[in-house]
Amino acid sequence: MRLATKATHQQTRAINHGLVLRTIYDLGPISRAEVARVTELTRTSVSELVGEAIDEGLVEEVGRGPSSGGKAPILVQVVEDARVVIGLDLGEQAFTGALVDLRGRILRRVEVPVEGRDGKAALGAVERLVDELVAAAPEDRLLGIGVGTPGLVDTAGGEILWAVNLDWQDLPLGRILTDRTGLPAFVANDSRAAAMGEYLFDVNRHAPNLVAIKIGHGIGAGIVLGGELFEGDGFGAGEIGHTSVVDDGVECRCGRFGCLETVASSRAVVAQAREAAAANPGGELARRLRDAGADPTIDDVAAAVRSGDEEARRIAAAAGRWLGRSVATLIGTLDIRHVVLLGSVTHLGEPWLDAVRDESARRALALLGRETRIEVGGAAEDTVLLGASALLMTRELGLVPAR
Amino acid sequence: MRLATKATHQQTRAINHGLVLRTIYDLGPISRAEVARVTELTRTSVSELVGEAIDEGLVEEVGRGPSSGGKAPILVQVVEDARVVIGLDLGEQAFTGALVDLRGRILRRVEVPVEGRDGKAALGAVERLVDELVAAAPEDRLLGIGVGTPGLVDTAGGEILWAVNLDWQDLPLGRILTDRTGLPAFVANDSRAAAMGEYLFDVNRHAPNLVAIKIGHGIGAGIVLGGELFEGDGFGAGEIGHTSVVDDGVECRCGRFGCLETVASSRAVVAQAREAAAANPGGELARRLRDAGADPTIDDVAAAVRSGDEEARRIAAAAGRWLGRSVATLIGTLDIRHVVLLGSVTHLGEPWLDAVRDESARRALALLGRETRIEVGGAAEDTVLLGASALLMTRELGLVPAR
Repeated sequence: MRLATKATHQQTRAINHGLVLRTIYDLGPISRAEVARVTELTRTSVSELVGEAIDEGLVEEVGRGPSSGGKAPILVQVVEDARVVIGLDLGEQAFTGALVDLRGRILRRVEVPVEGRDGKAALGAVERLVDELVAAAPEDRLLGIGVGTPGLVDTAGGEILWAVNLDWQDLPLGRILTDRTGLPAFVANDSRAAAMGEYLFDVNRHAPNLVAIKIGHGIGAGIVLGGELFEGDGFGAGEIGHTSVVDDGVECRCGRFGCLETVASSRAVVAQAREAAAANPGGELARRLRDAGADPTIDDVAAAVRSGDEEARRIAAAAGRWLGRSVATLIGTLDIRHVVLLGSVTHLGEPWLDAVRDESARRALALLGRETRIEVGGAAEDTVLLGASALLMTRELGLVPAR
Repeated sequence: MRLATKATHQQTRAINHGLVLRTIYDLGPISRAEVARVTELTRTSVSELVGEAIDEGLVEEVGRGPSSGGKAPILVQVVEDARVVIGLDLGEQAFTGALVDLRGRILRRVEVPVEGRDGKAALGAVERLVDELVAAAPEDRLLGIGVGTPGLVDTAGGEILWAVNLDWQDLPLGRILTDRTGLPAFVANDSRAAAMGEYLFDVNRHAPNLVAIKIGHGIGAGIVLGGELFEGDGFGAGEIGHTSVVDDGVECRCGRFGCLETVASSRAVVAQAREAAAANPGGELARRLRDAGADPTIDDVAAAVRSGDEEARRIAAAAGRWLGRSVATLIGTLDIRHVVLLGSVTHLGEPWLDAVRDESARRALALLGRETRIEVGGAAEDTVLLGASALLMTRELGLVPAR
């Protein structure tokens, strides 16, 4: 006989710690006796757990409550600005860092352009960004560093197994940042961090189950189930960019053929736009790409879409349909009603989003597709770094910020 | 601020109830005081929870332990044969029912052929099966009824939303069985029940994350995450049979086109074998299908595969490749290392299984596909009914059997 619940004895203490902290947060100022009554824990356990939280500076005593006959009890409450986290978003165009408080408020924000850096140069840029934020942080209140990075990440070990764009392989970024600063660090794939950010910081959404798909140079999804990030057996849950979708497709940068990224990423869209421009050099799309210079981006294609250029709209819709296929599979596999789309390819706008929605509705089982909401998210541009910060706070404190 | 853990205050009591029961099971005979010490719960809470369990007949007092100075404490232990569950598997060929004890042991088993029954006739057969098992069960120890059925099931309401084979739509099977017997009933999709059965009763496997795919007339997957069944936002997680995989494919019984079921189900394999036999009426496959009479089954095709018939092997491999595609997507989406294949199509054997494995490895991201184990499960033919029984026990007692 075994319990269906996940609460093994070893986890009980962590759960109790969290219960006590949350009870103080929700009901404080509150006495230890009242915490014991509400949580059904022994007074001894509660006193120990509250003592730990006070030692950690998370909880403080704030005077005495009304007496119920004997001596008036001491009340405790959570210290709201007790900790600050450094959140990082290693984006395609820029590395962004911020100081984030326990409520997910950004106290300071720094952005440095990537300018094509990769390998050691990119790592150097990350280190300088962290140094700057450590210097700017209130002393002794830094809880740690949360990083959202492209690539496949071993979150338990803080190691980036593989990040093609940045030319990183088996890079122990967590350890490097901890060695440098003395702070704990949590490294997560950017789509996963974004999913957590979307889950926590979009108050209208706040569905227990949510998939966030980031579509830029790469394509990856973050899956939040029951309010927690689901990472799979090897930290690879959500790696939809490298499932093969095109029979006899072109080679992908992963070495395989016909992956979703070869037809739906920003790179693929720009390549298709260039082809179309070469085939019709007198057209609006060709003119726009020429104006953009040697290296047109997804935003140049997006501008053409907005201006109503038919070729650009066709290309956007085709990319959207490919993504819609994968969204249909996600819906069929997980039956998650909230899908959030993020990343530079979302700039393609309506023709792209309509195609994603139409194709996924067409391909998913009617009963499932009907109620699924597919939306463009990331209204808050700091979704990734806020999500990464939240993941660090969750690991270090058992608490996540919610505004 | 909010806790990352799912333990809300309302859930605390249920978790505590489970903690107490498991502690008694693992460490019993044990005193209430010792249970309180191990669980860190108050003695008052423990006494209440043990009292409830004794009232329920799940726990019994078994004499006194050694004294630690004062009066020797009363010891308690779990009553192993305290409850019996009726488990049902509404299979394609037969409806199977069994009496299952809290350890997942089958005490009695009844099987009735379906013989093409559907609608009210099928429901009547289910009711008679339940009546027979209720009559055979030890009085006053029946905990409830767990049902594994094809189709999309609202497990919370016990309602079968849609089961094409049985021609059931919006059928409140849970309520019907409860009204008939006075017992609680839990109705789950058969693939979901099978996933739970595979998770619980295959000791070698017992991975916290597991996908079981049932491939018969229909195709569906059950997803176990962290030891618990994941059902999605609308009980549809795992409905992979009706995601569209073939462009311009044939019409599916769901009304859409090119679904996985149209190319990888038993129906599809038999149809392809018939076509091949018609094209080559002098061949081995044609002879076998003629011998099988008007209505050849997947097992006739499987026999041809085993005899080495090239056409049959080609058909089996093609069906396996289609399934392999979907498995690749599952791996890419969830990064689950344990995939178990069940159902009549697995009888196609090696050429089919090799094709599933090759295609999923070819299409999944290398880093993810490498460590995934894809195996044929269901060595225990009662996986579905044991899984359904376990789900009922989990809901009613917070306990699941593990042999």
